[in-house]
Amino acid sequence: ELRQRFMAPPVSGLRELRRRRRELRSRMELLIMETQAEVCRALADLDPGASFAVDSWERKEGGGGISCVLQDGEVFEKAGVNVSVVSGLLSEEAARQMRSRGKSLKAKDGKLPFCAMGVSSVIHPKNPHVPTMHFNYRYFEIEEADGTKQWWFGGGTDLTPTYLNEEDAVHFHKTLKEACDKHDPKLYPKFKKWCDDYFYIKHRGERRGIGGIFFDDMDSPSKEEVFQFVKSCAKAVVPCYIPIVKKHCHDSFTPEEKLWQQLRRGRYVEFNLVYDRGTKFGLLTPGSRIESILMSLPLTARWEYMHNPPESSKEAEILEVLRNPKDWVH
Amino acid sequence: ELRQRFMAPPVSGLRELRRRRRELRSRMELLIMETQAEVCRALADLDPGASFAVDSWERKEGGGGISCVLQDGEVFEKAGVNVSVVSGLLSEEAARQMRSRGKSLKAKDGKLPFCAMGVSSVIHPKNPHVPTMHFNYRYFEIEEADGTKQWWFGGGTDLTPTYLNEEDAVHFHKTLKEACDKHDPKLYPKFKKWCDDYFYIKHRGERRGIGGIFFDDMDSPSKEEVFQFVKSCAKAVVPCYIPIVKKHCHDSFTPEEKLWQQLRRGRYVEFNLVYDRGTKFGLLTPGSRIESILMSLPLTARWEYMHNPPESSKEAEILEVLRNPKDWVH
Repeated sequence: ELRQRFMAPPVSGLRELRRRRRELRSRMELLIMETQAEVCRALADLDPGASFAVDSWERKEGGGGISCVLQDGEVFEKAGVNVSVVSGLLSEEAARQMRSRGKSLKAKDGKLPFCAMGVSSVIHPKNPHVPTMHFNYRYFEIEEADGTKQWWFGGGTDLTPTYLNEEDAVHFHKTLKEACDKHDPKLYPKFKKWCDDYFYIKHRGERRGIGGIFFDDMDSPSKEEVFQFVKSCAKAVVPCYIPIVKKHCHDSFTPEEKLWQQLRRGRYVEFNLVYDRGTKFGLLTPGSRIESILMSLPLTARWEYMHNPPESSKEAEILEVLRNPKDWVH
Repeated sequence: ELRQRFMAPPVSGLRELRRRRRELRSRMELLIMETQAEVCRALADLDPGASFAVDSWERKEGGGGISCVLQDGEVFEKAGVNVSVVSGLLSEEAARQMRSRGKSLKAKDGKLPFCAMGVSSVIHPKNPHVPTMHFNYRYFEIEEADGTKQWWFGGGTDLTPTYLNEEDAVHFHKTLKEACDKHDPKLYPKFKKWCDDYFYIKHRGERRGIGGIFFDDMDSPSKEEVFQFVKSCAKAVVPCYIPIVKKHCHDSFTPEEKLWQQLRRGRYVEFNLVYDRGTKFGLLTPGSRIESILMSLPLTARWEYMHNPPESSKEAEILEVLRNPKDWVH
């Protein structure tokens, strides 16, 4: 049923989409839907026995979304891909919070019409030798009192391994770098650093993972060019990650390796609940769909008091790069 | 070794403590240490095979603490009892954050000398028929520019069951009510409500547990009277909780009951990382001991997408009281 949904969209839908193709907002909407379909198809191919829960939901205040969640599969412990397109009126305060740099916005009667759309996903595999992956690509529009529209894109893709595999790290970063370089060679280094800075668990002195790219508030050189860049990034999700899953999903592992994975999942929860701007914004926004926001949390996690892996262990090796991020490609 | 530490304090220590007994600050320090010892002794008696990790730590800026953590015992999955006595200088901003009502404080050169001490504990048992318990009793002093000292007490004890047992709920609340009533019959109803309000997981529309008592910023009628009240509460910890552990720690349980416990542990993590003022304050304070702050997190937790227990199940029964708190004693 899911495959049907993603592989054979009804003709009327396609025609409708083509009609709206000319407008960027609709093209972004299409990219979001396509990305969700592509990623879900790839996950379903790798884990054919697992079933997706597909929920579409509407927001009382305008818009809605579709959440696809696979749980307790053979390969994936929990994998969610969520799309949403919402619109309505924002308070000036909420609008300010949405932008990472606090541009001032002039509201009419204190309210700003907005439109926000995005695709976001977190994939937690079972095998501790397969890393967790997260991506999110999003587009915002806000209309000011005088009718001018502000718009920007944000997004990123990042990897959280339990154990370090340099070859995988290089493949992941290289694929993202190539997607960026097609547009501007300055983008990858800038967004690689932004990613390392953003996914920082301050109270642990560690990053959540080995990074990738992250950007926000991107509104230049032009709407078309930023869209093309975001499209390249979204199209890189499957090639940067799926080969790593294929390579390791049948690796053997020990109970100790599974335990270390569970402790790292605990850190993932800490980052998402304490620091992640998207999660915090979602939890504080009335009418947001909690299950879709918290689908990023792993199925299981663990916290041990004073767990410190021995020096020069494989566990200490990954901690070292989480504490001191490396450049994986030049 | 632990038993020795708690059961036979060296004579010199006792003499020293007696000497300082006259000052309230020292009497509170003693109460904190005694409470830690009492609770640890009770836990050790119930789980004789388990070993405590006892760590004492110092804070560069002044003071320190002792953390006692039992992990992976027969009865307890994870149980921590932490004491700390710290002092130093606070920024006006940090001082404001420490008080739940934002009293203004006049600082000398922007810095306020302070002293904070407390005992806090979270006990997560293995058996899903034994509830999790948390308590915390604390005392603050801040000196203003003109030399006047502000002081206040805070604290509380609350219960988080996986399944509702009315008899246990009544015993727990009744024991706390009796401790409060000795001082003022108005205290229990006020602090029971405060507890229900404080441990609210807004994004879930649920309380963390079935409550207990919670209070903050308590500075009347007098320092001596508030101290006596806090002492009664601290002395009620063992009698309100330990009989419940004894009663249920050998109950049989199914894998489904264990799973529901793990999902509830997930909610516990959500409250502690997203809402708990103490945790947030600790994570943001430079120089605080992260392992002692996060020892409140369970050993293991679980998040399932869209988990909704069937109507009139035992799982739905506890959710009902978490959504609509009940009065357990009148």
